[in-house]
Amino acid sequence: MTDTLFVVNAGSSSIKFKLFGVAGDDLTLMIGGALDGIGTRPRLKATGGDGEVLVERSFEPGEIAHASDAQHAIADWLAPLLAEHRLIGVGHRVVHGGPHYNHPVLVDDEVIRTLESFIPLAPLHQLTNLDPIRVIRQRRPDLPQVACFDTAFHRDHPEIADHFALPRALYEDGVRRYGFHGLSYEYVSSRLQELAPDIAKGRVVIGHLGSGASACALLEGRSMDCTMSFTALDGLPMGTRCGALDAGVVLHLIEQKGMSSAEVGHMLYHDSGLKGLSGISGDMRELLASPKPEAALAVDYFALHVAQAVARHAVTLGGIDALVFTAGIGEHAPQIRARICARLAFLGIALDEARNAANEVRLDSGGAVRVLAVPTDEELMIARHTLRLLGAPH
Amino acid sequence: MTDTLFVVNAGSSSIKFKLFGVAGDDLTLMIGGALDGIGTRPRLKATGGDGEVLVERSFEPGEIAHASDAQHAIADWLAPLLAEHRLIGVGHRVVHGGPHYNHPVLVDDEVIRTLESFIPLAPLHQLTNLDPIRVIRQRRPDLPQVACFDTAFHRDHPEIADHFALPRALYEDGVRRYGFHGLSYEYVSSRLQELAPDIAKGRVVIGHLGSGASACALLEGRSMDCTMSFTALDGLPMGTRCGALDAGVVLHLIEQKGMSSAEVGHMLYHDSGLKGLSGISGDMRELLASPKPEAALAVDYFALHVAQAVARHAVTLGGIDALVFTAGIGEHAPQIRARICARLAFLGIALDEARNAANEVRLDSGGAVRVLAVPTDEELMIARHTLRLLGAPH
Repeated sequence: MTDTLFVVNAGSSSIKFKLFGVAGDDLTLMIGGALDGIGTRPRLKATGGDGEVLVERSFEPGEIAHASDAQHAIADWLAPLLAEHRLIGVGHRVVHGGPHYNHPVLVDDEVIRTLESFIPLAPLHQLTNLDPIRVIRQRRPDLPQVACFDTAFHRDHPEIADHFALPRALYEDGVRRYGFHGLSYEYVSSRLQELAPDIAKGRVVIGHLGSGASACALLEGRSMDCTMSFTALDGLPMGTRCGALDAGVVLHLIEQKGMSSAEVGHMLYHDSGLKGLSGISGDMRELLASPKPEAALAVDYFALHVAQAVARHAVTLGGIDALVFTAGIGEHAPQIRARICARLAFLGIALDEARNAANEVRLDSGGAVRVLAVPTDEELMIARHTLRLLGAPH
Repeated sequence: MTDTLFVVNAGSSSIKFKLFGVAGDDLTLMIGGALDGIGTRPRLKATGGDGEVLVERSFEPGEIAHASDAQHAIADWLAPLLAEHRLIGVGHRVVHGGPHYNHPVLVDDEVIRTLESFIPLAPLHQLTNLDPIRVIRQRRPDLPQVACFDTAFHRDHPEIADHFALPRALYEDGVRRYGFHGLSYEYVSSRLQELAPDIAKGRVVIGHLGSGASACALLEGRSMDCTMSFTALDGLPMGTRCGALDAGVVLHLIEQKGMSSAEVGHMLYHDSGLKGLSGISGDMRELLASPKPEAALAVDYFALHVAQAVARHAVTLGGIDALVFTAGIGEHAPQIRARICARLAFLGIALDEARNAANEVRLDSGGAVRVLAVPTDEELMIARHTLRLLGAPH
């Protein structure tokens, strides 16, 4: 009978999950899977620690219409497997920890109420994140659950990074530059301490480049600034999200074009970014494969804006010692890394072409600025936090 | 009898004007003045070429309620002075030249209709700019008038700088990154060609830092990018304007806080920026004089964001050969220039303290990047354009 930890990472249309075996402080992946296509083409797939497929099953859209249905289906499937082990707790990714949570918390009734009070700060994501917590509390009221926040890693950033240039009353009311992808940054930063401890102490910019994308400035492993700010719309252009946008455009679309704020919001989250700019796709792989000039523009645009964000963060840090790529595009798209770094040659950033093409960890050609690609693992970070908070099992 | 050109620079609460004497291609300032406090405490003041006061007169708020009233009052006062000279034309600053005007135009009925079609792109400013044109056409239908656009200098920037990451239909519909302060950048760039012709050919960032503020990236004297984009809200934090803001904040204020888009717009234009952030004032001089920590935060915030914009533009340009400061803060606030440059030391930017304190033209200490302060003169740029379009008088 193994001690295990379960990790839930609930997004708008899927729940990713991992089951870790616990031995002292060591965490070993036993099962990893996802239930995606919630409400459209629900499909549960999971593999074991050696990559063997454990389940692959489709559902009717009506069967799995919400995150809570998905969580029930995952728990139903897991129950017999878990019966062989001792589940010591569950860790969750929760997008918003509000102005004050700079660390994970053990969930109780009061914490749930507090997390519900942050729903207006992230209406789409926060509810989806809380659903699986509620389902597990119903099914296993005894089981400790831990909420790990995407915002927590940034909460100790300097005051100057926490503000927009808006009336102070809004700041007091929670309109702050929270920053997101914090669990990814924290994990990659911890890996950097293992891979290059000298560099990890310095001025580091991490680009989390996936279908969601942001860049974080770190000094001595702590977040100093993030391109995502109040919401996950801001900063870099993404698969379907706009990134940095003139606030005047939002006002123009509402006042001059008669759009509702809901219509504008839907467009900025789902029909903008690489998808809107190219008119082709929000998927970087499709854009890289396309011969169309609109695809080339979108690819260039992405690389330019990432490079601009790196330079912006270099100002925050007073220079840059390392640039670290992570997430789907960051880990697997050498062409994009090459374009970004070419734009940053004036900062002393230079790639080794062969290392970059081979997706190695170290990518620079030995110049002043180290360049690395480090795979992220938000679920392992959540598991570590959960284990730390619960204490290693006896 | 001297040939003269009249220049009108109409803003939301004031009209600035200058009368230039014309001899061949030479322009000599004869009168400069303003009617400010339109609708609140209207006051007309003008000085001659040697700084002697020619008029100083107050009006009742109801007398000068709009830009058109102000233009009539200026014209009434000027009439006897102009009778001694031959007025060959009038040049106007017009904020928006739409997607296509990349140069000044001679105003006729069709041009007026075209400029009116841009009102939805800049509802507050475009109407105010067109009022004085209409008044002068009523009073002197014979007089040639030229519209000079804040956007024109940027219209030839690369396609990648013209886009947001939004659906392409919006781009076709005019939602583009127009850029502003173009007359100022064009003037300062022309001065740079005189002051440092080698540098003017290179990679230059100009910071137009006044109560409105933006930064422009120039290559060989041409605009490559501007921090102001679709509206004059975007980019740097300003006296009362927010600068770059997460679009999600606008949606949050409307959807969660019940504000109307008009209320949000008013707040972002008039109660944000340094004024909002400090809670004290939008005037940099007051903030520099204040001992309060909120004032210090706003000053630091401004300097950090200007420095970040310079680095961002350096990416666009592939490096930076010169940084040029202009406008009120840029020309007259050594402390702000020093803070900005200190943040950019890693790019090889270093000020000579004594030169900076003395507000000299050349400010750098001889390093790789030239730093200058160059006074701007939008009205002279407008006069030059107007003269060029009308042809020198015979």
